[in-house]
Amino acid sequence: MRPKDAFVSQIDLIAALSREFGPPPPEVVLGIGDDCAAIALDGGQILLWTVDTLVEGVHFDLAYMTLAQLGWKALAVNVSDIAAMGGEPGQALLSLGWPPQLNRALALEFARGLAQAGREFGVAVIGGDTVASPGGLTVTITLTGMVPASQMVRRAGARVGDLVYVTGYLGEAAAGLELLRCGLEIDPALAAPLIQAQLAPRPQLEAGKVLAREGLATALIDLSDGVASDLFHICQASRVGARLYQGAVPVSPRVAAAAPYLQRAPLDLALTGGEDYQLLFTSPPEASGRLFPAFLGARLGAPLCLGEVTAGNRVILETPAGEVDISGQGFDHFRLDRQAEEI
Amino acid sequence: MRPKDAFVSQIDLIAALSREFGPPPPEVVLGIGDDCAAIALDGGQILLWTVDTLVEGVHFDLAYMTLAQLGWKALAVNVSDIAAMGGEPGQALLSLGWPPQLNRALALEFARGLAQAGREFGVAVIGGDTVASPGGLTVTITLTGMVPASQMVRRAGARVGDLVYVTGYLGEAAAGLELLRCGLEIDPALAAPLIQAQLAPRPQLEAGKVLAREGLATALIDLSDGVASDLFHICQASRVGARLYQGAVPVSPRVAAAAPYLQRAPLDLALTGGEDYQLLFTSPPEASGRLFPAFLGARLGAPLCLGEVTAGNRVILETPAGEVDISGQGFDHFRLDRQAEEI
Repeated sequence: MRPKDAFVSQIDLIAALSREFGPPPPEVVLGIGDDCAAIALDGGQILLWTVDTLVEGVHFDLAYMTLAQLGWKALAVNVSDIAAMGGEPGQALLSLGWPPQLNRALALEFARGLAQAGREFGVAVIGGDTVASPGGLTVTITLTGMVPASQMVRRAGARVGDLVYVTGYLGEAAAGLELLRCGLEIDPALAAPLIQAQLAPRPQLEAGKVLAREGLATALIDLSDGVASDLFHICQASRVGARLYQGAVPVSPRVAAAAPYLQRAPLDLALTGGEDYQLLFTSPPEASGRLFPAFLGARLGAPLCLGEVTAGNRVILETPAGEVDISGQGFDHFRLDRQAEEI
Repeated sequence: MRPKDAFVSQIDLIAALSREFGPPPPEVVLGIGDDCAAIALDGGQILLWTVDTLVEGVHFDLAYMTLAQLGWKALAVNVSDIAAMGGEPGQALLSLGWPPQLNRALALEFARGLAQAGREFGVAVIGGDTVASPGGLTVTITLTGMVPASQMVRRAGARVGDLVYVTGYLGEAAAGLELLRCGLEIDPALAAPLIQAQLAPRPQLEAGKVLAREGLATALIDLSDGVASDLFHICQASRVGARLYQGAVPVSPRVAAAAPYLQRAPLDLALTGGEDYQLLFTSPPEASGRLFPAFLGARLGAPLCLGEVTAGNRVILETPAGEVDISGQGFDHFRLDRQAEEI
C-alpha cells in the first residue's frame, strides 16, 4: 500500500511549484496555468512558449504505435498548445530520452515522423539534446510561437452568458485508444479513422488563428484532457461556471457506432475522453453572426455549440435524468496511475 | 549480447536527426550543433534557447543527491549553455517526469532548489508540464537567453594560432562524483568542495558575458563533457586542431590531493572528467593584453592557458612521453552505458 501523500496530482503540483517560484517578471504576460507561457517582445508581438513530455507506458505504447507516429504526435500536441493561444508556431527543440535497446534505424524513423509534422505545421526543429533513458523512451518537445499582443486568447476571459463551442466532433481519439488497448477487431472502415485520431492528431491551428484574428473568442483551450476537464480549466481561470446540454454534445457518429463494441457510453468518451485536440472556446452570443462566416470563409467546419457560461464555479451537464456535476473529470495521468495501482 | 547497431552515439544521433530536419529557416542563426539554438529577433538581439534532460540513474542518483540539489543543478546546467554563448539567461520552463512513489514534499524540495538557482542566476521559471514517470525521475529544463547579435560567440570561430583557455581549475566535479560513487570517507575538508562541485555547479555567466562584451573569444563552449571532448567539439565546428601541453593543464590542487584515494590519474580527471561547467575558449594571442585585465576588472579569476589552436582536426596532448591523441574522449552517456553492459 502506498501512503496517501504519495499521490501527486498534476494540477496540485504545478500550483505548488508556482508558489515556490513566486511572481514572474513584468515581461512575462502569462506564466504557469495556461496552454503556453507568454513573453512580451518589442513591437507588440508575444512570444508563446510551451513544453510537453511524452513518457513510454504513460502517454504511449510502442506495441501499437510506430516511432514515426510518435514523432508526429510529439510535435502535434505542442502545436496544439500554440493553436490554443491563437498563435503561429515557430521553432522546436527536441530532448530525446533513448533506451539503449532501441536501434538507430528506429531513431531515424522517429525523426522522419517529427520532420513530417514540422513541414505540415510550419515548424523548424532546430536543435536539442539526446540522453540515454534506460527506464523507457521519453520525448520532450519545446516549441515557440508568435501572436500579436492584441490577438492572444487566454483561458481567462469567459463571461457569464457566453456560449461554449468546440471546433469538431468529440471522443474519436479516446475511442481509438480503447480499440488499440483492447485489440478489438471491428470493421476497419469504422476503426481506422478512430485509430488515426488517436495516433495522428491534427491540431486546429487555422481555427485558432481565425478566432484570434477576428476577436471571436473570450477564452480558448485545446482539448487534451477532455471537455469536462478542459472546460473546468477555463471556468477556474475565468472564475465562472458552465452548463452543457447532453443533446448538444457533438458526439462523433463514429464513436456512437463503435461504442457498443467498446462497452463505453459514447457521451462518456466525448466528454471525458482525452486527446481530441479540437479547440474549446467561449464566445458572446452577439458574435455568432460573425463566427460561422469566419470559419466557413477559412474553409473550416462550423463550430459546434454545446452549452453556455454561467455564474458559479462548476461544470454542469444537463441530462434527461437531471443535472450532473462533471467538473474536472477527464484524463489525468496521475489519477489513471493511481487507479491502476488500486486495481 | 546486443547487436552493434543498438549502440546509438549521442553525437551521431543528433547529426542524423539534423539531416532529417533539413536546413533551418533564415531567422535561425544557429541550429543543431552548438550549446544553444539562436534565433534573430528585431532590433539586433539574438534569442538563445536550450533544453537539457537529466535522467535518474544516468545523470544523477538520488542515493547521494537531495531533490533540492537536483533542482539547482537542473537549472545550472542550462544556464551554463547560455553562458557558453556569452548570453544573459531569461525564462525557463520545467517538464518534470515524476515517479509515483515520490511524495509531494520531495517535489516541493525540488522546486525550492530550482527556485533558489533561479534567483541566483536571474532566471524566472514561468511554466511547465508535469507527467507521471514510472521508469524514474526525469527533469527537463528549457531556458531562453538574450545576447546582442554582434556579441554572440559560437563554437565555430577558432583560428590557427589562437590560444586555448579555461576559466578555472579542472577535474573537481569528476573527482566529487567518484567520491560519491565509491562512498569513500576521506578528510571532509578535502571532500566537501569536490562533492559541492559535482552537486552544485556554478555556471560561469559573468565570464561568458565579459568574453562576449569585450570581443575576446573566437570560440566558446562550456565544459559539460570534459576538455578532451568539448575542445574537440570546438575543433570540429571550427575545422581546426588543437595542441595541449600536459604541464599547462590546470589540474585542481584538490583533485591532485584526492586522486590517490580514487585510484585515478589527476590529469585524466581534469581532461576527460565531465561537468566542471567552466568555460573553454579560444582567443588570439594579441588579445591577451586585454583578456586578463577584463577578467580581473570583473572580479573574476584570470583565465588559464593550456594550449593552442593548430591546423588539422585532432586534439593532441603533448606529454613527456610523446604526443597522445585525446580527441573526443570524455563523458558520453551512451558510451558509458555500453561499457556498463559490456562489463
